[in-house]
Amino acid sequence: MALSLTMKGIFYAKVGDKIERYMLIRQSVRGIASNGKAFLTLRLSDDTGEIEAKLWGVSQEDESKYVGKTVVLVQGEVFDYRGRLQLKIASIRPANESDQVNLEDLVQSAPLQKRDMQETINQYIFDIQNANVQRLTRHLVKKYQEEFMEAPAATRNHHEFMSGLAYHVVSMLHLAKSIANLYPSLNTDLLYAGIILHDLGKVRELSGPIDTEYTIEGKLIGHISIIASEIHQAANELGIEGEEVMLLEHIVLSHHGKGEWGSPKPPLLREAEIIHYIDNLDAKMNMMDRALQKVEPGTFSERIMPLENRTFYRPKSM
Amino acid sequence: MALSLTMKGIFYAKVGDKIERYMLIRQSVRGIASNGKAFLTLRLSDDTGEIEAKLWGVSQEDESKYVGKTVVLVQGEVFDYRGRLQLKIASIRPANESDQVNLEDLVQSAPLQKRDMQETINQYIFDIQNANVQRLTRHLVKKYQEEFMEAPAATRNHHEFMSGLAYHVVSMLHLAKSIANLYPSLNTDLLYAGIILHDLGKVRELSGPIDTEYTIEGKLIGHISIIASEIHQAANELGIEGEEVMLLEHIVLSHHGKGEWGSPKPPLLREAEIIHYIDNLDAKMNMMDRALQKVEPGTFSERIMPLENRTFYRPKSM
Amino acid sequence: MALSLTMKGIFYAKVGDKIERYMLIRQSVRGIASNGKAFLTLRLSDDTGEIEAKLWGVSQEDESKYVGKTVVLVQGEVFDYRGRLQLKIASIRPANESDQVNLEDLVQSAPLQKRDMQETINQYIFDIQNANVQRLTRHLVKKYQEEFMEAPAATRNHHEFMSGLAYHVVSMLHLAKSIANLYPSLNTDLLYAGIILHDLGKVRELSGPIDTEYTIEGKLIGHISIIASEIHQAANELGIEGEEVMLLEHIVLSHHGKGEWGSPKPPLLREAEIIHYIDNLDAKMNMMDRALQKVEPGTFSERIMPLENRTFYRPKSM
Amino acid sequence: MALSLTMKGIFYAKVGDKIERYMLIRQSVRGIASNGKAFLTLRLSDDTGEIEAKLWGVSQEDESKYVGKTVVLVQGEVFDYRGRLQLKIASIRPANESDQVNLEDLVQSAPLQKRDMQETINQYIFDIQNANVQRLTRHLVKKYQEEFMEAPAATRNHHEFMSGLAYHVVSMLHLAKSIANLYPSLNTDLLYAGIILHDLGKVRELSGPIDTEYTIEGKLIGHISIIASEIHQAANELGIEGEEVMLLEHIVLSHHGKGEWGSPKPPLLREAEIIHYIDNLDAKMNMMDRALQKVEPGTFSERIMPLENRTFYRPKSM
Amino acid sequence: MALSLTMKGIFYAKVGDKIERYMLIRQSVRGIASNGKAFLTLRLSDDTGEIEAKLWGVSQEDESKYVGKTVVLVQGEVFDYRGRLQLKIASIRPANESDQVNLEDLVQSAPLQKRDMQETINQYIFDIQNANVQRLTRHLVKKYQEEFMEAPAATRNHHEFMSGLAYHVVSMLHLAKSIANLYPSLNTDLLYAGIILHDLGKVRELSGPIDTEYTIEGKLIGHISIIASEIHQAANELGIEGEEVMLLEHIVLSHHGKGEWGSPKPPLLREAEIIHYIDNLDAKMNMMDRALQKVEPGTFSERIMPLENRTFYRPKSM
Amino acid sequence: MALSLTMKGIFYAKVGDKIERYMLIRQSVRGIASNGKAFLTLRLSDDTGEIEAKLWGVSQEDESKYVGKTVVLVQGEVFDYRGRLQLKIASIRPANESDQVNLEDLVQSAPLQKRDMQETINQYIFDIQNANVQRLTRHLVKKYQEEFMEAPAATRNHHEFMSGLAYHVVSMLHLAKSIANLYPSLNTDLLYAGIILHDLGKVRELSGPIDTEYTIEGKLIGHISIIASEIHQAANELGIEGEEVMLLEHIVLSHHGKGEWGSPKPPLLREAEIIHYIDNLDAKMNMMDRALQKVEPGTFSERIMPLENRTFYRPKSM
Repeated sequence: MALSLTMKGIFYAKVGDKIERYMLIRQSVRGIASNGKAFLTLRLSDDTGEIEAKLWGVSQEDESKYVGKTVVLVQGEVFDYRGRLQLKIASIRPANESDQVNLEDLVQSAPLQKRDMQETINQYIFDIQNANVQRLTRHLVKKYQEEFMEAPAATRNHHEFMSGLAYHVVSMLHLAKSIANLYPSLNTDLLYAGIILHDLGKVRELSGPIDTEYTIEGKLIGHISIIASEIHQAANELGIEGEEVMLLEHIVLSHHGKGEWGSPKPPLLREAEIIHYIDNLDAKMNMMDRALQKVEPGTFSERIMPLENRTFYRPKSM
Repeated sequence: MALSLTMKGIFYAKVGDKIERYMLIRQSVRGIASNGKAFLTLRLSDDTGEIEAKLWGVSQEDESKYVGKTVVLVQGEVFDYRGRLQLKIASIRPANESDQVNLEDLVQSAPLQKRDMQETINQYIFDIQNANVQRLTRHLVKKYQEEFMEAPAATRNHHEFMSGLAYHVVSMLHLAKSIANLYPSLNTDLLYAGIILHDLGKVRELSGPIDTEYTIEGKLIGHISIIASEIHQAANELGIEGEEVMLLEHIVLSHHGKGEWGSPKPPLLREAEIIHYIDNLDAKMNMMDRALQKVEPGTFSERIMPLENRTFYRPKSM
Repeated sequence: MALSLTMKGIFYAKVGDKIERYMLIRQSVRGIASNGKAFLTLRLSDDTGEIEAKLWGVSQEDESKYVGKTVVLVQGEVFDYRGRLQLKIASIRPANESDQVNLEDLVQSAPLQKRDMQETINQYIFDIQNANVQRLTRHLVKKYQEEFMEAPAATRNHHEFMSGLAYHVVSMLHLAKSIANLYPSLNTDLLYAGIILHDLGKVRELSGPIDTEYTIEGKLIGHISIIASEIHQAANELGIEGEEVMLLEHIVLSHHGKGEWGSPKPPLLREAEIIHYIDNLDAKMNMMDRALQKVEPGTFSERIMPLENRTFYRPKSM
Repeated sequence: MALSLTMKGIFYAKVGDKIERYMLIRQSVRGIASNGKAFLTLRLSDDTGEIEAKLWGVSQEDESKYVGKTVVLVQGEVFDYRGRLQLKIASIRPANESDQVNLEDLVQSAPLQKRDMQETINQYIFDIQNANVQRLTRHLVKKYQEEFMEAPAATRNHHEFMSGLAYHVVSMLHLAKSIANLYPSLNTDLLYAGIILHDLGKVRELSGPIDTEYTIEGKLIGHISIIASEIHQAANELGIEGEEVMLLEHIVLSHHGKGEWGSPKPPLLREAEIIHYIDNLDAKMNMMDRALQKVEPGTFSERIMPLENRTFYRPKSM
Repeated sequence: MALSLTMKGIFYAKVGDKIERYMLIRQSVRGIASNGKAFLTLRLSDDTGEIEAKLWGVSQEDESKYVGKTVVLVQGEVFDYRGRLQLKIASIRPANESDQVNLEDLVQSAPLQKRDMQETINQYIFDIQNANVQRLTRHLVKKYQEEFMEAPAATRNHHEFMSGLAYHVVSMLHLAKSIANLYPSLNTDLLYAGIILHDLGKVRELSGPIDTEYTIEGKLIGHISIIASEIHQAANELGIEGEEVMLLEHIVLSHHGKGEWGSPKPPLLREAEIIHYIDNLDAKMNMMDRALQKVEPGTFSERIMPLENRTFYRPKSM
Repeated sequence: MALSLTMKGIFYAKVGDKIERYMLIRQSVRGIASNGKAFLTLRLSDDTGEIEAKLWGVSQEDESKYVGKTVVLVQGEVFDYRGRLQLKIASIRPANESDQVNLEDLVQSAPLQKRDMQETINQYIFDIQNANVQRLTRHLVKKYQEEFMEAPAATRNHHEFMSGLAYHVVSMLHLAKSIANLYPSLNTDLLYAGIILHDLGKVRELSGPIDTEYTIEGKLIGHISIIASEIHQAANELGIEGEEVMLLEHIVLSHHGKGEWGSPKPPLLREAEIIHYIDNLDAKMNMMDRALQKVEPGTFSERIMPLENRTFYRPKSM
């Protein structure tokens, strides 16, 4: 069975495609069908995206075999269920050692290597002139080094993949550098440190890169207040005083832009306003690119909820 | 000069009242009149409230004599200027030692003694069962003891007077106790500690009890994030771990109820929701009582801006 | 079959529970399945709550047997259907005389006895000092005595059970008494009469305690305007004149707080504002308590739509 | 002095116009100028409109002479004060008997005669087919006959003049008749009765045709609930039962269209929706016509606040 | 089989009705059922309305036989599926020549003849006094003559049928004439031309009268900007200069009333405001009439989404 | 008189500064003071900004001497009037030939030379690959060449100075180039052409670079619809067909982002979304820079209305 889909990944699947692939079960939920038999609703992923599938008429043995974080070999056909794609499973079996597939290969992750992103971020930290700002930033990045490099930027919508947070931060740093070149009134120390720290609280707000969920702390405190407290405490521990600490706290507190978007203070610093902007811009480009990648020239994408539910047009020739 | 106004205080002044009183200059701003002469706009207070006055045709000597925080003896008549009361000054002179008046006597303050309020608050802390919650609360109250007992609760609108914050906290504690009696599912430890801490960040957000202004830290960080970081740091210093710390942080973060009102998280705990409610209730009672105190039965109060600009009715007989 | 669920009631059911119980059919709706056969969607209740169930492949005889307000003995298993619980029916039969179950026992109702609530309300009426206010209140309570004691407070969300209205009124009266103790400017006559009357129009807005629906009058006029007209007419009949009538009318008209929430006037009386507050507070406590009662410590409740769709946290230890 | 302004009325005044006219003092408010002398702010009207004027340096005698509802002969010049016209008074004296001017002639009123409007309204009542609707409408019109024919429709914005309410009702009746001709599904009985009654509560909400203010009842209850209660009571007194009463109550309750505009129920009847529409249409035409009447072709009117603060264009040639 | 439904059309169908009718397949979408077999979801129409139907277990031959724009003879029963009607198909076959049915007869269209509507519109153009306005209007009507007379006014909600646009325009013209009779300040040239042109851009925004969809140009530019550019270009080609062109452009640009409803400018001309009003009024009457036509006296209609999701009441007797 | 202010320009003036400068009268409005004498309110500018001044007690000769667009030599002192700066005039006289000052030198204008900006824009046009897009852009830039290079970008808020539009466009082009480097999915042809054209309609919406006002066409049609029609017509004249025209029209129509901000369509193209973003970013940087330029380190700027009325902080050291 030599199917092109096997090559391109589930993200590119269309109605009618027949597939045979190793996939990862992200989540498995038991239901009872109208005929009284149990079935499983599976969320299956590869390194390009996800699809839902139903496994009908399962035995108790099946239920214990097809649980979350299991790698399976699955055959089936893609169809449309109420406007979203689903996979109709023809056959399925757990992968075994001889299949030689790793869970990590079936999870979507950032297009850059972790090591390269780490180096880029270190270089920007190195470029920070103000010693206090540099120390503080370096200290917090070190404290959460590993989680930072693996965390997704969100549970869904944009950069919702392994290392998505680091990838988002790297893109924002490059944008900030370009923009500061054009507007010399911007302070690059605040921009770089603010960008590197702004979402760092997500390493405690979210449960990790696979099957990402909000933690209890994430729901009750949120990444914005988590990182603000961390900056406060770090400055204390490092004996750093001075306005810089307050400015960095302000930048992370205000980076969602408005109270109704989760920021207890709106941006009141030029650099805070610009970081809020750059954050949005990079997230939007990511969402538009992903949505338009899936459609043919001359047609419209599916609706993108966080972009006011708009559907975007892919021109025929440009 | 036996004027009734002299007895009752400037808060009760009406158009046409003639007064002779010691008053405190809260603020003095220089202007130039259309005839080219300098004048001062004075905000004058006694222990019941404030009034604005113009001092026309001032010399340079006058300008240096009538500055903020000066006590003066002033004679004049109250009139209406574009819907608000002003004092037309007939004569004015700085008070001297022989007058025997203190600045403190000319500033509005809470109707309870600081010592009594301190005792009440300590009693409620004593009633907290959970040892961690009690220690944390006691620690932070001690850290800001003095400022807490003197701070106003706001720059204007409600409890905007000396010790207004402590007075507001005491009223809320009594309310919480009554309500918890009727709804046994509420945890009084969280209620009492949450109420005592919820606005404690105002000791750093506001500049103090006289001529209260927002500090730079107040504008950039805000009392909500200030106290959340303080709880975080205090738990660290005291070696307190456990869910309680996170619950208290959540309560202070959420006590404004919504993002657009300054809370980065909405209340997600029963006790957080109730504290938000009690906070509002006490503020509203304070505003309505003050507005209705000034008007005759059978008439309406002035508009109260933070109560959706409503004007309240004082019944004739009830 | 000795199942714990049989003891605790359907409100506490979890996925996988097997039950055998007498239940009341609240509503029965016929459908046609994809296999062309008729089925019934039943809403089944006991005295703790409700659950939905499908009865597949029904005959015409079944259809006439399993109609609304029938008591049945049902066996089955609870499962999850798109995030809500459903009952998979294993067997069902109508109850007969020998089963000795009453419809009334299978309907959720207030945790207090009607007689006790009636007495409490009478006591508060007795405490009203103003003769006009007392007579007017007593007159209207008498007029709708029976319906008042049986009516639910709503069709869903809070106090949506038999005698829910009276129970809600009693809680509010106790709250009002506590609060008036702390704020002596509040007039208890207006508070007590206002609370007793505020929702009395619901006896005509809603169809009664079982399978509650809006009446045509309820949809076109609404309980707020219904009771306002009733007060107007009662004052006429009793020959009562004076400001009190207008004040009571204002309180009932304004008790939803804002135009967009159904009040033609916002509260412009201290007591009107407080009644609006107490009304909300009691409704919210009722909703939060019911939602948190169902979940384990350390987890979040389901979303509560009228509380801005929030999900509440039940602490582990407090 | 033969000034064109004397002919055309104060509504048409422009900056620089010199006038000599009999005018009515609508309101007189005392102030104190920066030079310490008393002055009066007068609102002066004739039968076309109003203008503000200052009377500087007044004696106590002047103050008692130039009070509200006094007719005066005034000379002066019109000028611009912060974007609004004011009258600079050159001379002023109270009118005396030999002047032979009546207060009534100096008040703006509807362009139709009261008697004619009364007749028109009676004719429409006569055209109502349904006996109950007709009796109810006739009863209430009779009850408030005199006030109805004199009342303004508002304190400002539109139809804010003597008999403005009756004039507004007559225009709406004609509109309703035209529209019902085009849409035969509309019931003219409900339209005519609904229009005649919809604003009748204003006879108690407003203080009368001169210097119109809200009454206490107007502020606390409002014309919508006033007339709804009146319909309820009238039906009772006349022994009228049946759906018609409820439908008319619904129409008056819903005629502001939305909760935030003061209606406790939105229109849920075809006729209620159309009356809401016609009400708006006639008010808007009145406001646009008055604003455009004052400006030259090829220019824009002043901003009209209740029309979303828009400014309207008067074409050059059309 | 002599079924009343066959007479009255699918719009009037109720749960339980059995039908046998020629119908048009508007749309056919393939799905896969939980049993793994293919099925078709058909939207079927006659000249009164539409209904959805499922065709279970289809072969590949069926799939190619039952495609969009096919006329079929269908037998079945109407049932309720999640609150909306569906048709359960008992038998179906494509119509053949001997059946003698035309696709056109199975499409809903305006209650007036195209020729009559065309004549009416021409008469109104003839009544336009201003030569430029008349020429411009005539030119554009001619340019799109055929599409204008066939286009629907929308894809759903109101006038969403063959010739719906022309029918809507004719109703609006009659309304405008009546209203201009009552308000002589309105210019009928601008009213008539503005109404005829206001939605003409829909001939390019929508794909045509059957299975109406938005075109790419419709989504990216919209009918408002399309017709504004067309007026601009037409004036250029006809050599028409003068304010009239700008006024007509303004009317079409502003006819949705507000920015959030799609108009780049709010109405700033009396006639623009009135056209916006008339447009709404006619659309609302159309929606209310259609919804109430389907329900019994004494009951409420289904919810009408564009009328703020309201449900309307059909009185018992009036 | 060698005053530092004379050097730095009126934009930098502070309360108490004494100045002697040539300035341009932008606007002169006559008023009548409370003493009955005429006065002029003058808006005076130099090449850095504006200030208001009152000229008291003017003769008729003065009134004709001090009109708009007159250059004057003025001496005076800056003071605070209700929170805004005003100039108290000590002496004033019209400039004469021997003063050798030009009107142009007293008007604020862009910091780049017109010629340089023109060249930059031409270079970007040259870089457009698509021949149709390039021709269309070049054609429209040529058509309005001169006005484009002189027009301000707005009447107030940002880039409200001579050549402000061209300056804004140049900054946006540089930004677009940087961003497209980082996001290769963006089409630079659409970005460059879209940016150059997006505000070109302002040459007809606004009255020109001095005393900028909205034209009638500007108010009724607006720059967005003006340029959309121009693109449509230009494509017609140049015989250009193809999707590109529609895409450019969409970009200019959507560049305000939302209906309520004046765009009849939201951005539905990646490039349209980015142009909307860049437009905002450059406007915000311009407003923040201008506001912060005026204040000392460690203080807050005045409120900036179009930035949600925020006040921005200028850090002490960074």
